[in-house]
Amino acid sequence: MRMYDLILKKRNGGKLTEDEIRTMITDYTNGSIPDYQMSAMMMAIYFNGLDKDETLWMTLAMEHSGEVLDLSSIKGIKADKHSTGGVGDKTSLAVTPMVAVCGLKIAKMSGRGLGHTGGTIDKLESIPGFSTDLTPEHFVNQVNDIGIAIMGQTKDLAPADKKLYALRDVTATVDQMSLIASSIMSKKLASNADVIVLDVKTGSGAFMKSLEDAKALAKEMTEIGHGAGKVTKAVISNMDQPLGRAVGNAIEVREAIDTLNGEGPEDFTKLVFTIGSQLLIASGMYDNESDAKAALQKVIDDGSALNKFAAFVKAQGGDESYVYHPENLPCAKLTVPVVAERDGYIKAMDCEKIGLTSLILGGGRVTKESAIDLSVGLTIEAKVGDYVKKGETLAVLYANDEAKAKEAGETYRNALTIVDEACEKQKIILDMI
Amino acid sequence: MRMYDLILKKRNGGKLTEDEIRTMITDYTNGSIPDYQMSAMMMAIYFNGLDKDETLWMTLAMEHSGEVLDLSSIKGIKADKHSTGGVGDKTSLAVTPMVAVCGLKIAKMSGRGLGHTGGTIDKLESIPGFSTDLTPEHFVNQVNDIGIAIMGQTKDLAPADKKLYALRDVTATVDQMSLIASSIMSKKLASNADVIVLDVKTGSGAFMKSLEDAKALAKEMTEIGHGAGKVTKAVISNMDQPLGRAVGNAIEVREAIDTLNGEGPEDFTKLVFTIGSQLLIASGMYDNESDAKAALQKVIDDGSALNKFAAFVKAQGGDESYVYHPENLPCAKLTVPVVAERDGYIKAMDCEKIGLTSLILGGGRVTKESAIDLSVGLTIEAKVGDYVKKGETLAVLYANDEAKAKEAGETYRNALTIVDEACEKQKIILDMI
Repeated sequence: MRMYDLILKKRNGGKLTEDEIRTMITDYTNGSIPDYQMSAMMMAIYFNGLDKDETLWMTLAMEHSGEVLDLSSIKGIKADKHSTGGVGDKTSLAVTPMVAVCGLKIAKMSGRGLGHTGGTIDKLESIPGFSTDLTPEHFVNQVNDIGIAIMGQTKDLAPADKKLYALRDVTATVDQMSLIASSIMSKKLASNADVIVLDVKTGSGAFMKSLEDAKALAKEMTEIGHGAGKVTKAVISNMDQPLGRAVGNAIEVREAIDTLNGEGPEDFTKLVFTIGSQLLIASGMYDNESDAKAALQKVIDDGSALNKFAAFVKAQGGDESYVYHPENLPCAKLTVPVVAERDGYIKAMDCEKIGLTSLILGGGRVTKESAIDLSVGLTIEAKVGDYVKKGETLAVLYANDEAKAKEAGETYRNALTIVDEACEKQKIILDMI
Repeated sequence: MRMYDLILKKRNGGKLTEDEIRTMITDYTNGSIPDYQMSAMMMAIYFNGLDKDETLWMTLAMEHSGEVLDLSSIKGIKADKHSTGGVGDKTSLAVTPMVAVCGLKIAKMSGRGLGHTGGTIDKLESIPGFSTDLTPEHFVNQVNDIGIAIMGQTKDLAPADKKLYALRDVTATVDQMSLIASSIMSKKLASNADVIVLDVKTGSGAFMKSLEDAKALAKEMTEIGHGAGKVTKAVISNMDQPLGRAVGNAIEVREAIDTLNGEGPEDFTKLVFTIGSQLLIASGMYDNESDAKAALQKVIDDGSALNKFAAFVKAQGGDESYVYHPENLPCAKLTVPVVAERDGYIKAMDCEKIGLTSLILGGGRVTKESAIDLSVGLTIEAKVGDYVKKGETLAVLYANDEAKAKEAGETYRNALTIVDEACEKQKIILDMI
């Protein structure tokens, strides 16, 4: 089997076999297929696509290109969730302790990533002492003991995906549905949970700008999950405005804790309950959404979800007192309101610009080497459909630098479209697959 | 300008600008654009194409990626011809001395190439002493003195094309019309003739299998030529059977000499006269084909074309006595006839298999490093439309190895389709553009 022949086959619209895809991924990972042939293949796939079988085979090949986590010594149903990413997305922080109280085992690998805020791991590190640098034994034991552990992605998790994604990123072949789906799912499958719930975002702040594309991606990913023998569900959620009110790192941890106290923003709470109930249903613990949601409400009301989060923080070296006193978490020294320059209804929020606002303040990474300021961020005071008067606060910025605060404030204001006519508020849950 | 953005633009069906293409080719040649980005670009071009402007810009950028031959000190009209390649194609050997006698200046760069026989240079090297290793001064002086010189391609002739072709060759992006056209024309333009006649082959032994594709390629190449300010014409010729009767190296030189003596095969002679007359007309020396052909017939009849070939051979160090006694050129020790196994009409000849016959005998190169046996080859005794009886000779092989001769003979026989019904003979000239 020569790579040349595989490129030609795909270029001419042919279907690659399971063996061809496995060999291709193995040989690319070990360096015997050069980048220049793989990038030609990726572009051929961009134009001619991968069918359902090929997508599954590609995913499985990438999953098995490195170590697959051995979770066999964890008792119970291992569950995982994944979000395709958006502004203000702190869902994992709130939902994982809730479902852990209900009996699911959360053995989660998470990343730092690039973007407007840090990843889940960066956010958690705003709690003094917290570490995700766990040994495999600690990780497994902690999940068995308290039901939840989060560690950083090991280098050996789906290395083919890592190498391939880096190549796609510089050859304009990222935005192909089957390649996106196989990239995400290869890592999820290598993390080896029994049950996976995917949160596919759509809108101005999401990779999938249209609902149609988000549904198509959700369909491809759930099909891969099913093909790999995993119970897989997808929620399509709105990212035409930021999720909740907090955007940043420490500030998002505070909002997650508020939510565990039953005091979270309405849209965020609704998403947490939807994903939580899907996890419980997919695991076979409940057979309908209202029972599952009632169970989740109970762990909020009786404080057990908050206590679970505290136990999790403590188990990973963090100071649990911050969970009960989130007001003590790091906060930037400047508090700068962004005010409305006219009366009107907020018609639209450009999420990419709001993400940029956080990035300007120092809350995210531009390159892998960038340092993150975990104390900065913003609180959104008015969302789509809200009426504001001139001079009223649209958002509050938390900054450590006046010039950056000024630039961030202008960026934020430019993100909003304010009109005279009343506008509808937005729904958070758009579809379930 | 980032290469990423150019790939994205072409992938999305956009049109690259002249500046973008020039910078891309410059930066690829000097190594600042990596192979893996260029191969993605080539695949995007495979799918979305290049328009007429982009194709011209690409060609000019590749032409100017290295040295453009300075022929300014050559007096008169510089003419060049190019063939897209086929089995038994020794046209340059015969046509260049003929038009040189008529007054055109032939300053030709030629290659060795891979394939079933050697390139023009290999064939000429079967004349003892002949060398194409000329200094630029020798080259220019020789053209001024006798009207014709052939040298090997310098490394610095269109180096971008060389690098890009090598990449396309391993990434399944060779067979794209605009890329083929720009590759050929970049080298022709860098050779800097005023007048170019292209011989575009079509059929089982050609890169372009269909007449339609051959016409499209001819159109693209002539448009590039016109865009670059060169008088450019194309002849579409038949490659559904080998050209002439001789396939090999020394044996093809013999057939070219026969033709200069007025004793060449009919199809080959016709092609030589057609290309020769197009060169003379394109140069403005004649305004119609019959006058141009009469001029060519005259230089055959009076022996001046043969004498010109002898002068050319002598000027490049070769022993001119072989031109007058071609029977002394190297010939392999075994003469093995391939005979018909049934009566019938020859309906088709698979040129690729006939090329393979020569390759098996040792007449061509499999890799750049392969040695060529200039003395081997074959003479075709029956062509499409001819009637043969069982036991009659189809071809004569000239071999230095019995086992190879046996294998080559079987390959040759398999190349022929012999049927009961009479078949038409094939036309050599299919179209002119």
